[in-house]
Amino acid sequence: MNLLLLFQDDLVAAEHARLTGRRLAHVREVHRAKVGDELAVGVLGGKMGRGRVLRLDDEVLELALVLDQTPPPKLPLTIVIALPRPKVLNRVVAAAASLGAARIVLLNAWKVEKAYWASPRMKLENLREQLILGLEQAKDTVLPELRLARLFRPFVESDLPGLLGGGTGLLAHPGIGGAAPKMLLAPITLAIGPEGGWIEAEVQSLLTAGLRPLDLGSRILRTETALAALVGRLF
Amino acid sequence: MNLLLLFQDDLVAAEHARLTGRRLAHVREVHRAKVGDELAVGVLGGKMGRGRVLRLDDEVLELALVLDQTPPPKLPLTIVIALPRPKVLNRVVAAAASLGAARIVLLNAWKVEKAYWASPRMKLENLREQLILGLEQAKDTVLPELRLARLFRPFVESDLPGLLGGGTGLLAHPGIGGAAPKMLLAPITLAIGPEGGWIEAEVQSLLTAGLRPLDLGSRILRTETALAALVGRLF
Repeated sequence: MNLLLLFQDDLVAAEHARLTGRRLAHVREVHRAKVGDELAVGVLGGKMGRGRVLRLDDEVLELALVLDQTPPPKLPLTIVIALPRPKVLNRVVAAAASLGAARIVLLNAWKVEKAYWASPRMKLENLREQLILGLEQAKDTVLPELRLARLFRPFVESDLPGLLGGGTGLLAHPGIGGAAPKMLLAPITLAIGPEGGWIEAEVQSLLTAGLRPLDLGSRILRTETALAALVGRLF
Repeated sequence: MNLLLLFQDDLVAAEHARLTGRRLAHVREVHRAKVGDELAVGVLGGKMGRGRVLRLDDEVLELALVLDQTPPPKLPLTIVIALPRPKVLNRVVAAAASLGAARIVLLNAWKVEKAYWASPRMKLENLREQLILGLEQAKDTVLPELRLARLFRPFVESDLPGLLGGGTGLLAHPGIGGAAPKMLLAPITLAIGPEGGWIEAEVQSLLTAGLRPLDLGSRILRTETALAALVGRLF
């Protein structure tokens, strides 16, 4: 946690926060802060700054806030990612948020097992928690937009063309061929397939919706590794 | 596992392999292969190709091999990374191998806790296993060179200048400033700090050894995310 993220409920006055639970425990056990220390803080959806520790014990953390910084800008990036298996989901969602994506779409695909959608990790409460962990990691306060697209075809045919917003859509796929797209216009929409890849019909639908192929070469990377490598390459 | 990696001990003849253990279980339970199926295979340090399943039961997997492909080239990249905490170590080592780094150096730093070096995960047997998982993920057969540098100063002052090999060394650090280096000459050496970053004296030592600063911007990424994003940006 590089930024302690505060919620409206934590603010007992405009410049005074009171925290309990996970964040209290983290500040005590990991930061090992003491009264008088200053922590990097931010208000969800708002400004960032410093919080001076007024009180810290096993009941509560109280902070005096100075909020004078704006959060870093989002990347003009929509990540459309085939729903990863539950074991990987948390890391992927947190990584996407930490990298600064403005929007994340979790999309169904042929090789996404139905059970993934029913995982407890797909509860909105958990997904939001992962986004917040990503923001705390990257020192950001603004949640990306998160969409769940449980039906591939309606999303790709009806929603995706509008999401492209006059920018560049890219379909990342190992061995898809073609030259690397040049002159990428923002916003960028980046589609990343499931383990095992998109099936041919999905590739065709995504290309028809306006995405351009982006060959990933012969190395097949884990979803979160591929995601970060692509964001590093594009921005 | 996108590539089934075979060792010399598995080869009962030049074109005939016999496997047990983790890989047998994986092929049965995840690939759900049957006799006659073909699997992507490679021989550690050697060629890749296909293996046709001759026998598959709870005792053994036997394959008839056709090895006619060379593994993908390594990136001309040395990753010098402050030893991550044990919970993260496996993922970082596997990711570095999957990305195609030719050499990985795990380096001590001020903010690396001593206990990390004593973790069971630091046993060479485990580190090698993680490298192999990375190769199996990325469809590669060639182990990167792995070095452990438990003493920061001797490594940076005596070994690092030689490792640069006339190429470009980069010191990734959030907010270090300076323009992004241009005209990067291969091989590239990329130094990535610990959680909490390099301390100032380490930054100075690394710059003196010939690295150039590479500003990571304001977003602080997890080690494995930063690693992949940097490799995506540089190659």
